[in-house]
Amino acid sequence: MIILKIGGSILTKKDAPESEVDSVNLKRIALEIKKSLDNSSKELVIVHGAGSFGHPPAKKYKIGQSFDKDEYPQKRIGFCEIQNAVKKLNMLICEEFISHGLPVIAVPASSFITANSKRITDGNLDIFKKYLSKGFIPIIYGDVVLDEDLEFCVISGDQIIQYLASNLNPSKVVLGTDVDGVYNKNPKTHDDAVFYERFSSIEDLDALEGTTNIDVTGGMVGKIKELLYLADLGIESKIINAEIENNIYKVLENDDVKGTVISRSKT
Amino acid sequence: MIILKIGGSILTKKDAPESEVDSVNLKRIALEIKKSLDNSSKELVIVHGAGSFGHPPAKKYKIGQSFDKDEYPQKRIGFCEIQNAVKKLNMLICEEFISHGLPVIAVPASSFITANSKRITDGNLDIFKKYLSKGFIPIIYGDVVLDEDLEFCVISGDQIIQYLASNLNPSKVVLGTDVDGVYNKNPKTHDDAVFYERFSSIEDLDALEGTTNIDVTGGMVGKIKELLYLADLGIESKIINAEIENNIYKVLENDDVKGTVISRSKT
Repeated sequence: MIILKIGGSILTKKDAPESEVDSVNLKRIALEIKKSLDNSSKELVIVHGAGSFGHPPAKKYKIGQSFDKDEYPQKRIGFCEIQNAVKKLNMLICEEFISHGLPVIAVPASSFITANSKRITDGNLDIFKKYLSKGFIPIIYGDVVLDEDLEFCVISGDQIIQYLASNLNPSKVVLGTDVDGVYNKNPKTHDDAVFYERFSSIEDLDALEGTTNIDVTGGMVGKIKELLYLADLGIESKIINAEIENNIYKVLENDDVKGTVISRSKT
Repeated sequence: MIILKIGGSILTKKDAPESEVDSVNLKRIALEIKKSLDNSSKELVIVHGAGSFGHPPAKKYKIGQSFDKDEYPQKRIGFCEIQNAVKKLNMLICEEFISHGLPVIAVPASSFITANSKRITDGNLDIFKKYLSKGFIPIIYGDVVLDEDLEFCVISGDQIIQYLASNLNPSKVVLGTDVDGVYNKNPKTHDDAVFYERFSSIEDLDALEGTTNIDVTGGMVGKIKELLYLADLGIESKIINAEIENNIYKVLENDDVKGTVISRSKT
């Protein structure tokens, strides 16, 4: 089984004044997945980010930060607003995927996951196994969930990957982002940025000055931390650039694609 | 805790060429619920029907009927299409409810319920209890779920009420429909239609010639069967007309509202 994450930065327009899907990327990626599934059947779970649908209300309501008791009703309505905003994004993504014949079925994190101090503690994945066994593509996304310590928190698509991968034993974990992988500096602004073919320890993080992909759920550093956790379990993952045509298709086909492998093994 | 069902016939436009929300009813009902919650806090679970969003694709793909093996991929994509269509309706309903300050949080049936021969067999409701304990209003709706016998089936909002009420021990179960309650004939076309103040046995069903509210999930007769099952458990329910202004508000306030009570007791 393959876990494929598609970043919110790929599927939504970051700079649009209103939440907006990047319909060109969305259609292209739907077609790349379909082409690969037509070549040979594969079990696939898709995770997508919240992008410009989830991040503005998450910032507005400061979900995940501690708050005074009298702010509770406002925080709670913010929680609902975020759930509905990411549901809308998911609905638009599923609409496009289904129109190309991809049997995607949403299982939102807020329906079954709970957390403590922003980390997932509980979430029964049996329904994922059932949908997979029937040939569906379960799809889950960055969402809000109840938090034992903080009342509410935001769970990033990256933490979801980690949770799914830890529990579902995938053969492959792929993260499609808007960069080629991990650099020590932002490659869009620094010509001397060094690219990492492989990333294997938390100490390597000190070398990173910043990335192009900062979001409220942690950006590239947050991503790497989740993936190093998987690496500890012996699950290798790869960060690739999903903006480059056919990269998603090629990675699903086991063809060579530029990217950063996150693994504890140095070879 | 109160379980309030709002019928798809109230929230969507049946005769529109495309799936369309009845935004006048939707806003009015949101405000009636809000007004009652502002008077005094209440635990509330909302169930809504699929209306003109769910029924057309459910009919098109004949979900819930047996099929040949080679039809499987088409049925499966139909399942996905229905899930996404009712998700869209739910998103629009939540958007309106949230804008009036109602903390609604969707927990779709397809995320956690499975069935056998079109009857719910499994579905852990712990997350409902958690959201209720935090003052949220969990919202669930007519949806598609995996079926052990038939592969796929449609679960009506009415069956969901029955399942929730059987397991959550509500103090009140209310169904807002587009008629005043149960008649022996269609009151819109028959002046001599007899209204039932109370309905207490399956035999009473023989007296019903038909209702105005026939849908793919069973219409009024299906509704009554679900509610009689609850009556057997000692849970009384009431069918009221949610098209009449303030009926939802009044029923939440324990004020007198015309309707049919479904109960095993004859008094």
